[in-house]
Formats: sequence, C-alpha cells, structure tokens
Amino acid sequence: MKIIRYGAPGQERPGLIDAQGVLRDLSSLLPDWGPAQLHPETVAAMASLDPSGLPVVPSSVRLGCPLAGVGKIVCVGLNYADHAREAGMQPPSEPVLFMKAATALAGPHDPLVLPPGATKTDWEVELGIVIGQRAYRVSREQALSHVAGYVLANDVSERSWQMERGGQWDKGKSHDGFAPLGPWVATPDELPDPHTLDVWLELNGQRMQDGTTRNFIFDVPTVLAYISQFMTLAPGDVVLTGTPAGVGLGQKPDPRFLRAGDMLRLGATGLGEQRQVCVAA
Amino acid sequence: MKIIRYGAPGQERPGLIDAQGVLRDLSSLLPDWGPAQLHPETVAAMASLDPSGLPVVPSSVRLGCPLAGVGKIVCVGLNYADHAREAGMQPPSEPVLFMKAATALAGPHDPLVLPPGATKTDWEVELGIVIGQRAYRVSREQALSHVAGYVLANDVSERSWQMERGGQWDKGKSHDGFAPLGPWVATPDELPDPHTLDVWLELNGQRMQDGTTRNFIFDVPTVLAYISQFMTLAPGDVVLTGTPAGVGLGQKPDPRFLRAGDMLRLGATGLGEQRQVCVAA
Repeated sequence: MKIIRYGAPGQERPGLIDAQGVLRDLSSLLPDWGPAQLHPETVAAMASLDPSGLPVVPSSVRLGCPLAGVGKIVCVGLNYADHAREAGMQPPSEPVLFMKAATALAGPHDPLVLPPGATKTDWEVELGIVIGQRAYRVSREQALSHVAGYVLANDVSERSWQMERGGQWDKGKSHDGFAPLGPWVATPDELPDPHTLDVWLELNGQRMQDGTTRNFIFDVPTVLAYISQFMTLAPGDVVLTGTPAGVGLGQKPDPRFLRAGDMLRLGATGLGEQRQVCVAA
Repeated sequence: MKIIRYGAPGQERPGLIDAQGVLRDLSSLLPDWGPAQLHPETVAAMASLDPSGLPVVPSSVRLGCPLAGVGKIVCVGLNYADHAREAGMQPPSEPVLFMKAATALAGPHDPLVLPPGATKTDWEVELGIVIGQRAYRVSREQALSHVAGYVLANDVSERSWQMERGGQWDKGKSHDGFAPLGPWVATPDELPDPHTLDVWLELNGQRMQDGTTRNFIFDVPTVLAYISQFMTLAPGDVVLTGTPAGVGLGQKPDPRFLRAGDMLRLGATGLGEQRQVCVAA
C-alpha cells in the first residue's frame, strides 16, 4: 500500500494510492495517518480493503507530508562511504546520529524556502524509515518487524549553520521546510528489500546524486538496532538513513549551494519523486 | 499558576497547585496540559478560576511530566561560563544547540534508570522554558511574550554516548527517562524574572551544583530569539537553558558518575524540587 496525505497545509486528509495509481480518500475510515494508525494491524486492515469503493481524489491535489504526528526525526550521518569522502570525513566506525526538528516536515513538492541569512543551503536525498511499533533495544533480527514503511526524504541542510555556528549539526538541519517527505509511505510489502534502491537527485535537470542503498555502510536493521540502544523509537518516528555522494558541499572545484529559482527533483526506487522549487524567503 | 499533571505514567490528568499548596484536578475543564492549552488565553482563563471549587488531589499522588504533547526539546549547551570551563571548553560566542528526544521525558520524581551499557551517566540541573505561542524569527523584545511558563529540568546525559560515540551529542542526551521535568510549570506571573533564580543539585545530600541564572552567558530572550532564527518554536516545545558548574564530569580529581542507589535532589527558585533515585536497568 502507498500511504498519502493530501490537501492544504495543516488540513491534510489521509488517503492511499491504489494499484492503478489513483488517489483514494480514507478519511471516512481513519482520522489521519498518525502514530495510532501505523500499527501493523491497522495498516494491514487498510491494505486489505478493496480500494475501488473509496472516493477518488483528483491527481491535481497538493500532497502533504504523508505522516501526521511525527514524534522525532533521527538521522544517520555519513552512511555512504562516497559521501563521507566528499565531506572530508572518515567513514564512521559506528553510526553518527543527529536530529531534525519535526517542525521541519513538509510535503514532497512544497516550495523550498531558502531561510533568511542562509547562504549554503544544500540537498541530501535519503531513504526514510517509518516506525510502526515501539522499538527499544531491538536486535538486528527483530528490527524490520518494527517498520511501518519507507519514504523518500530530502534532508535539506544549511551548511553554514550546521558547521560554522557552534559545533552541533541540528541547528542547520531543522529549519521549517527542511524535511520534505513523500510523496507516499510504501509499506514493506511494496518494498521487500530496502537495500537495493536507487536514490538520485537532479538540480535543474542535471544528475547530482546517483546512489544506491546497496552502498550503505550500516543497513536498515543495523541502524534501527543501533538507535534503539540509545532511545526508544516510537510509532510515527522517522529515521533518515544518510545520503550518497553528490551534495552541493562536495562539488568540485567549488561547492554549489541552492539559489532562488533552482529546481530539485529527487527519487528512489518504489518511493516516487519529489520536486521542489527554491524560493527566497 | 502552577501547572501539573498527575497519575500513573501514560494516564496523567491535568491539574494545578493552588496558593495554599493544594493539588487540584482540572480534568473536567481541560483534556490535558498540551500544546492546545498553553496559549496565553487558555492559561489566563485557568488562572482566573477560583481553585477552591476544584476537586482536591491527594498530595501522595505521582506527579508526571507537567506537559503533554511536547513536540521537541531544544537545548543550549555551555550557557554558564563556569560549566564551560569544567568541561574544558571555551565559553561559546553564540549558543550551542542540540536536541533531546521527547521520548526522554519523565516525571520529576520517577526513578532514574541507568541504561544498559551506560557507564558515565551524569546530572545537569537546568531552567526550562515552555513555549506557549509559535515563535519564528522573534526579536529579543518579543521573545518573552511567547513563553507559557518555566520548569525545572534535569538534562541527564550519558557522557560516553555523548562524547565518545561518533561526534554528535544527541545520542547521549535522549535515553528514556533522561528528561525529568517538573514538579510544575510556573506561569510567568509566578516568576516575573527568570534571571535571578538559584539552581542547585545535591547528590546523596552533598551540594554539587550551586548556580544562579544571573550567570547565564545568553539570557532567556536572547536564547529564544536565537533559536527562532533556525527553526520555529511551537506551543508545547521546551527549551533547556544549560547547566552551571558541578556536573559529575567536572569533579576533581576524578569524575563522579551516577551509580545505582544514588539519590539526586535538585531545585530552582520558584520551580520546586525533584528527587530521583538511580536504579540499574
């Protein structure tokens, strides 16, 4: 099943995309797609519906962040060796973790507002993991049973705030709009192996990132088991798994950061595409 | 007004402490003390009630985290020069920010579980700020009007995870139970000047931290204005303002970290006291 939320910002309603690619409304059945609806039993019940009886939503509708009530966004840094190299860092011996504020969440095609004072806003296409069941000190073997689905993410980052303003990364990762998710959350039956996905990003039509999750340093079960040693992952939490090489910071001979008018297009196998136009604040 | 939540973990009900120190139930008037109830108008309406008509709650009740639905916890590091010195760091030229997971929240007197594998669990008494109204790019002058109240916090930190496991601090700040808040949220009328508060902590009856918010490097309006340049602060968000000298990491000649059986007692002027007994996982 492909989980969506659609409608005006702050007024999104829950839905799904059926096998024919038609958007269908679920608001008569669910209050929203939030932590209480991500339990495997609820997801399975929705997936077993015959969608042909559900109201059709026009394909022109705005898609919102496909998750409501996200508690936290935990991010893995430097999880592809090629990206660690371009950032001038050693591949880490264990996952580097940081957080993005949930106030940064946005729809997949919302304009990306370049914040006032930002000078080095950068892109990072990533595979996101959506938690469906409480996970604390889970083993690698148990980890995947806690996953409600997968989602495409752009881990937008203001490098000057991340790296030149006091030493901790969160400051440059959390601006409103810096976490576009979607267009949909794919349940695990749609994406049985999260380690064979192409992840790519284009800037103004030019391919900048061209990675594959085959190149993860730490795979999905390892990441989930690792994080859950340090904190509980709760239903509705999102884990971002790191970005491959090709971010703006890594361009040679000079970094290339986002400017008003730039157009981003990014995607991952089975997870659809995002398009964001960059606008000045 | 002193805002509380009481009852078993996960089943807390909203209440207040009246001028005579009596706990009163508000659950007939409010669903909870969450983001939707922290707006100044709601807070003012509750404060204007004659509490003598509200049901009395036995003083033996468990107090929970006095806030429901906390969206994020943004923390300022190294905001007292004496603590920066003991940590071997320069006082920062601008606030250092990091985040704690909201899954770390706990009641003020809940046992502090020392996590499996943790070897350097440490205390940090702090003044917390509770956001009542959305704050984005607010000025220092506007900042305090966005505050719903103040709260005592223990920013519990596992130093080995914070500093020896991959470079970003969040990993050592976010374990379940690492953010005891309370006993109450004091509305600003109770605490008109947050910059004259004694903040202190005792370990097994011995005074370890003995600070005052007079020694902030960055005061409350500065901190709020600063954070709101990087992200929106939403109702129910909590900002922790840093800890004074005297943490376990800073003890001479050897650091002193928490062990099972240790008893913490901490307090701040106008914000009450917390007591935590440390227990093995």
